[in-house]
Amino acid sequence: MTLTVSIITVFVAVAAVGICGLAIGKREYLNMAVYGIERNDSGGFLAQISQLFAPSGYYMEEPYYHRYAIRPTCLFAEVLNRHMPEVDIYNYKDKVIGNTVNALLSTAYPNGEFPALNDASRTMSITDMGVQVAVSVYSKHYGVDDNLLGMAKIQDRVWMHPCGLVLSRALEQAEQKASVGMPFWPSVELNEGSDGTHGAQGFIRMQDKKGDVSQLVMNYGQHGMGHGNFDTLGISFFNRGQEVLREYGFARWVNVEPKFGGRYLDENKSYARQTIAHNAVTVDGKCQNNFDVARADSVHGMPHFFSVDSDVNSGMSAFANQHYDGLSMQRSVFMLALDELESPLLIDLYRVAGESEHQYDYSHQYQGQIVRTNFDYQSHQEVSTLGADNGYQHLWNIASGKPSETALVSWLQNNTYYTWLGTSSNDSSEVFFTRTGANDPSFNLRSEPAFIYRTAGKTTLLASALETHGYFNEEFEQSVNARGKVSSIKVLGHNDVGSVVQIFTSNSLIILMVCNQLTTATSQHSVTFNQINYQWTGSYAVDITAIKQEK
Amino acid sequence: MTLTVSIITVFVAVAAVGICGLAIGKREYLNMAVYGIERNDSGGFLAQISQLFAPSGYYMEEPYYHRYAIRPTCLFAEVLNRHMPEVDIYNYKDKVIGNTVNALLSTAYPNGEFPALNDASRTMSITDMGVQVAVSVYSKHYGVDDNLLGMAKIQDRVWMHPCGLVLSRALEQAEQKASVGMPFWPSVELNEGSDGTHGAQGFIRMQDKKGDVSQLVMNYGQHGMGHGNFDTLGISFFNRGQEVLREYGFARWVNVEPKFGGRYLDENKSYARQTIAHNAVTVDGKCQNNFDVARADSVHGMPHFFSVDSDVNSGMSAFANQHYDGLSMQRSVFMLALDELESPLLIDLYRVAGESEHQYDYSHQYQGQIVRTNFDYQSHQEVSTLGADNGYQHLWNIASGKPSETALVSWLQNNTYYTWLGTSSNDSSEVFFTRTGANDPSFNLRSEPAFIYRTAGKTTLLASALETHGYFNEEFEQSVNARGKVSSIKVLGHNDVGSVVQIFTSNSLIILMVCNQLTTATSQHSVTFNQINYQWTGSYAVDITAIKQEK
Repeated sequence: MTLTVSIITVFVAVAAVGICGLAIGKREYLNMAVYGIERNDSGGFLAQISQLFAPSGYYMEEPYYHRYAIRPTCLFAEVLNRHMPEVDIYNYKDKVIGNTVNALLSTAYPNGEFPALNDASRTMSITDMGVQVAVSVYSKHYGVDDNLLGMAKIQDRVWMHPCGLVLSRALEQAEQKASVGMPFWPSVELNEGSDGTHGAQGFIRMQDKKGDVSQLVMNYGQHGMGHGNFDTLGISFFNRGQEVLREYGFARWVNVEPKFGGRYLDENKSYARQTIAHNAVTVDGKCQNNFDVARADSVHGMPHFFSVDSDVNSGMSAFANQHYDGLSMQRSVFMLALDELESPLLIDLYRVAGESEHQYDYSHQYQGQIVRTNFDYQSHQEVSTLGADNGYQHLWNIASGKPSETALVSWLQNNTYYTWLGTSSNDSSEVFFTRTGANDPSFNLRSEPAFIYRTAGKTTLLASALETHGYFNEEFEQSVNARGKVSSIKVLGHNDVGSVVQIFTSNSLIILMVCNQLTTATSQHSVTFNQINYQWTGSYAVDITAIKQEK
Repeated sequence: MTLTVSIITVFVAVAAVGICGLAIGKREYLNMAVYGIERNDSGGFLAQISQLFAPSGYYMEEPYYHRYAIRPTCLFAEVLNRHMPEVDIYNYKDKVIGNTVNALLSTAYPNGEFPALNDASRTMSITDMGVQVAVSVYSKHYGVDDNLLGMAKIQDRVWMHPCGLVLSRALEQAEQKASVGMPFWPSVELNEGSDGTHGAQGFIRMQDKKGDVSQLVMNYGQHGMGHGNFDTLGISFFNRGQEVLREYGFARWVNVEPKFGGRYLDENKSYARQTIAHNAVTVDGKCQNNFDVARADSVHGMPHFFSVDSDVNSGMSAFANQHYDGLSMQRSVFMLALDELESPLLIDLYRVAGESEHQYDYSHQYQGQIVRTNFDYQSHQEVSTLGADNGYQHLWNIASGKPSETALVSWLQNNTYYTWLGTSSNDSSEVFFTRTGANDPSFNLRSEPAFIYRTAGKTTLLASALETHGYFNEEFEQSVNARGKVSSIKVLGHNDVGSVVQIFTSNSLIILMVCNQLTTATSQHSVTFNQINYQWTGSYAVDITAIKQEK
């Protein structure tokens, strides 16, 4: 058995007891399973579904465990619907069942895979049997829409049950009229905590001109108990059918008996759950909350804004002010559609504020082949680890170099080029190219690369832009737009009121102004940096000016 | 332009001149292109196709360049068929056109990809436009068979030409009758050299009970000029849709302009073409033929036997006696179908004979995750390279350990487990786990793992068995038969007459006896090792005894 016992185990047990009670004709067991032994709302299925899910429907242990919980939830709901119609389970607590199914589905990447938040497999997807049951149950009791049809098409099967028949018939009908497309869930912010006040998980989606969906995920919610990763304000990014800024997922080979019986491996704690394993900022080489689960569970992220009304720019921002002693952190991430770019540009502003000097490691888990940089780096003749603990002991320091002003790192992942440009408000920085696998005596880790932008200073703004561009096909020896169009990013200034960054592309000058205080849609903000005054209304503003390129 | 100019460039030029001559009404240019300027069989298309291909149809620069050459060959043949019917091009020189198309196609793996022999992309496949033209031309002029239909199905298109129409109609007809399966080419040995006496390339295929095709490729032919890799007696192995013992392919990012203009990279010479980059034996840490192209082109492998008549065991053996000074080498590889095993067992005997003591590095390029070993190994706290030159400078020495008797290394590649058991006739050995990427200042190499079984001694037999077993599906959390059934391999003895090895599986004792001298099918052989006499007739014999396992 695993060292970490999920709360879900209890959940499954309750549903199992109820169904067994029914099967053996002991209605009292069913009653206990539904209402709890004490019948005082402290136990039983109804109490569980009232308390476990946030008002948004989100489950704190994240999608991998949610898809596991959803199966007994839906099965038992279906049992109650037939055998305890008086509960009116599908309308219970403002339709909590439908709500939580909806929340789970709305986390999935466009290809149906779930982001590997917290302890999770990287390949778990909506084709899981639990999700099949959930989609079928939802279709019957809450109605079918285009996204559900798209998901059913990815699943390629339905639950063998009258609920599944409803979905199957709906899909058949829809396909007779037209082809059923991929699901395209709207952007959604899912609040956390039983009253919805413990932060949130943000999911922003934007479609490019060719219909490809970019999805940006940020964690600014709860820790997730024993399965939690220490990655508040961590992000992941997906487009063109692949995760670009990647989650490592758990260090575990489920059911591979020779790999420690398929259980969670030591490296799950020593690497996979550490802050440095994520797309986040690690301060002073330490893990958020010092890898203390109780401490981590006692704090949470704080939503700032979630703005997804525009077709050309979307953004979300959140604070994490209790995760490192004496430091407040704010991350603001945006997707920006520009005519000259093939896909939405990801812009990321990570601000760390405090009294004293710290080291900031801004890490990016990518995959593929480094194509170019705009700075020299030295690849080391002998390699050692980047550090001694907090996950750094597992990172080989393969190469490093010192960029001047904007650092550019460009890589090729399968058929697509990605170019990252990063900078900070500090004077000096260093980029490390790392690879997992150090201090891994049983080859338990996958060998995966990352690059880490390191700077040091007091209150600091780290800023980056990630461009998705071009096309490469090795088999057909095609390569298009291998260099991209974004040429620089610069921090113009930042303070407790706002941050301003400037980005140059081939044809545009972009000024992005972001509010660093809690704000309303109509608040006016004004900051002055280098004698230039910047003003905007609400959470943020994007100012784009066409430029003529000097040739 | 690349530093290595392929002979094909000349080939393409000749076809181009001929077709241009025709287009601009200058028949004399066509004549020159066909017969050469001197009309003395020393130049022109007819001389080229007579001389460039071996009697088997094999092209010495290997499939990647062959598929490139095949397009102008077939296009120009089609031109001549119409405009110079007197040449009777499709019957010219015993149907050299059809013969060489057939040879190219018969090298492909079951999924349609070409083994990356010599300088080659790992992803080049029969869907390449040149191969499409070739398959269409072949269909029209030499007839359609099931394998061509299977290939056309993988290609999913035909040449837009009357030749393609023939194939398209044949496929349509065939599909109306039944579903068209994957192509399954017979095992084939393709001789090399203009008279077929310069060694050969061996391709053995065997189907398992579920229809999956295992393909074993061994290079015992010519070097291949400027594009040649120094890997005579190198093998590759493919099954379950993936290459298991892998070719690295070239160090080049074709058409990726920021990667050195898409040209061959320095690492192509310093790593990809070196012996250690292959599934071969590197002697004393040096490259075959000292990486001297002229020397390599002056020697070649020598076929010993190629035996593919049995459904339950197939084998091939060859010598390379001029590739290292003072050493003769023989490799004998087999596929053996056993009822108790899911897939054919790959057995490999590599014998090195000479007067003095040498170091032998028996390298295996794999992919995936190490699952277990039967010996302790130390993963290094700081890693350095395995050597200073001949490709070793690019290998990180990640971990190493000293096995006793049989060394076992098991790994998981996608959905399949592989277990390798290796040994030698020497007393001691060491296994190194390596990864490419050292001394790679521009991230030009892919990061890929290998394990190297090292031993030292005078005349030595290295022996191994590779079992394909089980199934793993991360998404569905399924794992079956993760440990395999082969338990040991032991060298019972070897001399200039023969080699004898013993393999234990759960249910069988296998004795494999291989002839180390040139032989005929009826020759009797006898060797005595440890007072036991082994006798067999012909090239090799396999003796299988059912055993009862002690529990």
